Amino acid sequence: MDLGWGDYVEIPTARSLSSMRPEFPNRVKIVEVGPRDGLQNEKTPVPTDVKIEFINRLSQTGLKVIEATSFVSAKWIPQMADHTEVMKAIHQRKGVSYPVLTPNIKGFKAAVNAGAKEVAIFGAASETFSHKNINCSIEESLIRFKDVMDAANELGVKVRGYVSCVCGCPYEGKIDPSVVAKVAKKLYDMGCYEISLGDTIGVGTPGSMRLMLEEVTKVLPSSILAVHCHDTYGQALPNILTALQMGITVIDASVAGLGGCPYAKGASGNVATEDVVYMLHGLQIETNVDLNKLIDAGNYICRAVNRPNLSKVSQALSKEC
Amino acid sequence: MDLGWGDYVEIPTARSLSSMRPEFPNRVKIVEVGPRDGLQNEKTPVPTDVKIEFINRLSQTGLKVIEATSFVSAKWIPQMADHTEVMKAIHQRKGVSYPVLTPNIKGFKAAVNAGAKEVAIFGAASETFSHKNINCSIEESLIRFKDVMDAANELGVKVRGYVSCVCGCPYEGKIDPSVVAKVAKKLYDMGCYEISLGDTIGVGTPGSMRLMLEEVTKVLPSSILAVHCHDTYGQALPNILTALQMGITVIDASVAGLGGCPYAKGASGNVATEDVVYMLHGLQIETNVDLNKLIDAGNYICRAVNRPNLSKVSQALSKEC
Repeated sequence: MDLGWGDYVEIPTARSLSSMRPEFPNRVKIVEVGPRDGLQNEKTPVPTDVKIEFINRLSQTGLKVIEATSFVSAKWIPQMADHTEVMKAIHQRKGVSYPVLTPNIKGFKAAVNAGAKEVAIFGAASETFSHKNINCSIEESLIRFKDVMDAANELGVKVRGYVSCVCGCPYEGKIDPSVVAKVAKKLYDMGCYEISLGDTIGVGTPGSMRLMLEEVTKVLPSSILAVHCHDTYGQALPNILTALQMGITVIDASVAGLGGCPYAKGASGNVATEDVVYMLHGLQIETNVDLNKLIDAGNYICRAVNRPNLSKVSQALSKEC
Repeated sequence: MDLGWGDYVEIPTARSLSSMRPEFPNRVKIVEVGPRDGLQNEKTPVPTDVKIEFINRLSQTGLKVIEATSFVSAKWIPQMADHTEVMKAIHQRKGVSYPVLTPNIKGFKAAVNAGAKEVAIFGAASETFSHKNINCSIEESLIRFKDVMDAANELGVKVRGYVSCVCGCPYEGKIDPSVVAKVAKKLYDMGCYEISLGDTIGVGTPGSMRLMLEEVTKVLPSSILAVHCHDTYGQALPNILTALQMGITVIDASVAGLGGCPYAKGASGNVATEDVVYMLHGLQIETNVDLNKLIDAGNYICRAVNRPNLSKVSQALSKEC
C-alpha cells in the first residue's frame, strides 16, 4: 500500500528537533485496546478465530502492548466469553505484552491459567458510575481487587490500573480532579505499575485534561501514567497532545477507532490508533509502530465485523480521491 | 436542546485560569467558511433560498465573520453561480462581516455591487498547485490580484488573503515553510489585513504546523494570522491547539464539517466549527458563539443538502445513546 502523505509528513528536518524536544517526549508507548475495549460492545459476537487473527496481525505491527480480552463473567460481557480460547490460541510474540482485564480473583486465576502474564484492574473516579457499573463504592471496588493484587504479586504478574470517568461522568457530570488523583494513587499504592486515566465518555477538552493531569501529577510521577481518550466529542487528539506536553508517554488507543462506551451519548469509540500514530510520527516521536501494517490490521477487523473504519488516516490513505 | 456535557465542561474553576492563561489567548475569532468553502464542492446544487436561510441562521449564532459565497465564474464553480442573489438577499447583521472570494477585478466589482464590504484573495504555497488550480505561477497569481487590491483600497473594502497548501501539496508533497512565509508576507504587503494559512489537504500535524508557523511568524505578527485546517487525517483540532499555543487567535472552520478539497485523498472536509468551539470553550477561551444555535444551523444545512453532520460534538449532543 502506498502511504502517500503519511511518508513525508513524518520527517521534519533536523533543525526542528531542537525546537520540538523540550515539550514532547522522544518515545511513546501505545497500548492497543482494540481487541478488548474495542470489541466488547459489538452487538453481533465476533468469531473467536477472527479475534485471534486480529491480535496476531496487531502483533506484527510493532505494538508492544495489546490488550487481548477480558476475564469477566460471560453473563456480564458475553462478547468476551471466549477469553480462554483467545489467550491460548494467539501467538504471543516476544517483547509484546498481552494484558487482560480481571475483575476478581476468579477471573485472575482463569487468566493466568490461560497464559496471561499481565492483567488490568479498574476503578472509577465517580461514585455513581462505580455503583451503576460494578455495584459498589469506589473504596469497595479497590478492596475487592486486593486479592487479585496479592495473587499477582505472588506469581510475578504485572498489574495495570484503570481509572474511568476522569474528565466527566454520565451520571454526575463534572468530576473533581482531586478524586481522580486519589483513586489513581490508591491503585498505584496497591501495586499497579501503570495507571491509565480514562476519559470514558470523551467529554474532556485540553482544558479539563490539563486540570486533571495537574492534580494527578502532584501525587504520581507522569512516567507511570497513561491516558485513555474516547473521541465522542472529537477531542481525543488535542487531549492526547496536551497529555504529551505534560509528560505523559503512554497512550491507549484502539485501531480503526473500534469501541465506544455504552454509557456515552453519541457512542463514538476510542481514539483511532492510526490517527494517534500519524500525529506522533509527525511530531517525530518514536512509537515502534508500522503505520502501514496497523492500517491493514484495522481494515481486516472492520471487514470481518462489518463496521466502518473510523480512523481518518486510514480513510484518507485507503480511499482514492 | 439540552446540551448536557457541553454545559459543564466549559466552566473550569477560577484557579485554572492562571495556569492556562500563559499559553492560550483569552479570545478567538472564528471565521465560518461553511457557506463558501463548505458548499462549493456539493455535487447537487444547493438551492439559493437554502443558502440564504443557512447564512441567516449562522448570523444568529454570535459568529462575527461568515464567508458567504464566491464571485468566481460559473464556468469554474457552478455551485457559486448564485453569488449575487445570495449576497443581496441575506440579512447582513450589524457587527458581522460577510467576506466573499474574488479571483479577479470582474468578480470584485460584481461583489461590491452585490453589497460585499469585505473580499478575499488567494495564493498557493506550491507552484504546481498554483499552476493546476489557477493556471499561473504563484508570483503571477499575486500580480493578478493587484488591481483587486487597488480597487479595494479605493473603496475602503477590507481584503483577506488565503495561502493554500501550507503543510503539504497534493502534487509536490512537502512544502518548504519559508515559501509559505514568503507568500503570506507578499499578501500582507499588498494590503491584506489578515492572512489565513490553509492546510488544504489536511496532511499537517502539530509538528509540521509548528514548523510552518515558526517561519511565518518570523516575518509577520501572529495577530494578523489565521489557520484554516482540513480534517482529512483527523489532525485539525491538535493543529489548531498548536496554533493557539503559538499566538494565533483567528480560526477558520466550517459548521458540520461541510466541504472538502477535491484534490485531497479521502476528501474529508473542513474542521467542524462545533468541535472547535467546544474545544475553545473547554479552554475557557471566549468565542462569542452560542454552541446550541451553531449546532442547530449545522443540522439545518445537513438536512437540507442531505448529508451527514460530520461534527462529533453535534453527533454526540444530537443523538440519544
